[in-house]
Amino acid sequence: MHIAITGAAGFLGQRLVNQLLERGELCQQPITRLTLIDQIEAPQPAAESVAVTSVALDITQPGALDSVLEQRPDVIYHLAAVVSSAAEADLELGMRVNFDATRALLEGCREQELSDTRLIMASSVAAYGGELPEVLDDMTALHPQNSYGAQKAMCELLINDYSRRGLIDGLVLRLPTIVIRPGRPNAAASSFASSILREPLNGEEAVCPVPTELPMFVMSPGRVVAALIHGAEVPSEALATFRAFMLPGITVTVADMLAALRDVAGEKALSLVRHEPDPRIEAIVASWPARFETAKAKQLGFVGDDNFKQIIDAFVTEPS
Amino acid sequence: MHIAITGAAGFLGQRLVNQLLERGELCQQPITRLTLIDQIEAPQPAAESVAVTSVALDITQPGALDSVLEQRPDVIYHLAAVVSSAAEADLELGMRVNFDATRALLEGCREQELSDTRLIMASSVAAYGGELPEVLDDMTALHPQNSYGAQKAMCELLINDYSRRGLIDGLVLRLPTIVIRPGRPNAAASSFASSILREPLNGEEAVCPVPTELPMFVMSPGRVVAALIHGAEVPSEALATFRAFMLPGITVTVADMLAALRDVAGEKALSLVRHEPDPRIEAIVASWPARFETAKAKQLGFVGDDNFKQIIDAFVTEPS
Repeated sequence: MHIAITGAAGFLGQRLVNQLLERGELCQQPITRLTLIDQIEAPQPAAESVAVTSVALDITQPGALDSVLEQRPDVIYHLAAVVSSAAEADLELGMRVNFDATRALLEGCREQELSDTRLIMASSVAAYGGELPEVLDDMTALHPQNSYGAQKAMCELLINDYSRRGLIDGLVLRLPTIVIRPGRPNAAASSFASSILREPLNGEEAVCPVPTELPMFVMSPGRVVAALIHGAEVPSEALATFRAFMLPGITVTVADMLAALRDVAGEKALSLVRHEPDPRIEAIVASWPARFETAKAKQLGFVGDDNFKQIIDAFVTEPS
Repeated sequence: MHIAITGAAGFLGQRLVNQLLERGELCQQPITRLTLIDQIEAPQPAAESVAVTSVALDITQPGALDSVLEQRPDVIYHLAAVVSSAAEADLELGMRVNFDATRALLEGCREQELSDTRLIMASSVAAYGGELPEVLDDMTALHPQNSYGAQKAMCELLINDYSRRGLIDGLVLRLPTIVIRPGRPNAAASSFASSILREPLNGEEAVCPVPTELPMFVMSPGRVVAALIHGAEVPSEALATFRAFMLPGITVTVADMLAALRDVAGEKALSLVRHEPDPRIEAIVASWPARFETAKAKQLGFVGDDNFKQIIDAFVTEPS
């Protein structure tokens, strides 16, 4: 079992690599080879029985992935992407990385006749937008209100069409907001959602820029990585007529998140969260849908977090 | 008012040109110039006060539309496309014509800073597919089951994103099955829907390959052209957060269509229709959704046919 991962140096990529090495098998077959792909060389964990190769390359260059695809990977995780704020700031960059590189990957798979290779791409809640129903489901139209979401939605259509034509065995998982991310606050509008938990758990102050009644649709990094792994194991026949769907996040308000923080780490941790409204961040985050019926994902065996306290507990026991 | 039309030599393109010349104005401004674009030179109707130019060019070639866009058209109708059967037979051809050429058109508009130019593209009922609700509406997800529909759906996302970014003033109209098309039967699965009416009205025999209880979502050529014209006149502000939607067709069974034929042309015309089931055609046509709530189109002032008899009457009085 040879697994290739684009975006392998990223937060999710690294966790996925570690998890795969820990399991040692995928689809009930021993993992013999991992090819880690990123702009910079991804960290290459020590592994006894798995040949791990890390290659630094620019997937937007023609033929960049040829040498990897010639090795006929059995599973490809396509996690490389330009994030939403960068895709919004630079339309060409977003189109080139998020769309054209995905298309080139699909064409490369086609050239190598990798029709049985399971290709798993990460999409996003950002693909939804505009006027939305109170609760979204698998039949809710994608009307993205940002270029990142539009590019991801275009990739979904392309991967579905290539899969329908039997050129690839594709699957797209739309990810909820991932909480608690490790590391430091960043420029993402969703950064606070990790920050208001992660910093107090580390005894540091954090700022909450949104009203506490704001609902969000969230999933822990551990469950997201488990979903990526499960995505390799879902039989093609079960995917039916459309191969992109939302993962089963849980709906929590910021107040729920802070209450769970207090339950786990006490009043003192809670008191480290300062409330400083930022209308710009509130406007962005409030535009993300927070309530979903994820029937398809659940039927296919994808599993969300049980509750928000579990998300905090997971971070505390396994913080990175 | 300068109007450019791709696919101007096609059936809809020609009717649109004639209708625009007959009106003489669009958006309450006199039409001074029409640029007709197609692979072959489109017929160039005589026009007194309108400068009509017909150019034969391949819109898939880099920069093909530059000289047209440099003239800064006020309205662009983008009707050029590879039809569904051809896009299914040849993935590259479909991607190149249906998707890449649309993207190049958008980039050309951006280069020329045509942010106020209304760009109107025709999409299709073929963008819908898979497991669908009994009645579709403006929030029904697009899960196309053919490459043509996937390519159109990708263009919808791109046009919406370019419009949202203020790079173009775009609009996409999803067309119902057009009935009654003029001319002769062709290889399209929907060909019979025009044929079983057009041929008997001309005293000729026709074959109906599907069960008469099969429902379809249809619109007359006259109403489609009226919708294309209305599309130029809808204010941008009214288009809200997503600029692609289904036009208000009417739902009729094949039996309804034949009953209307009898009402207009009598039993003798009806007796010219032979019933010869073709499971292949039935399977394709039955996969097209036939019932829609087209709230957005109606709210924006798009108008469908009143009933099927009106569609036949329009064909009889104005057959081409």
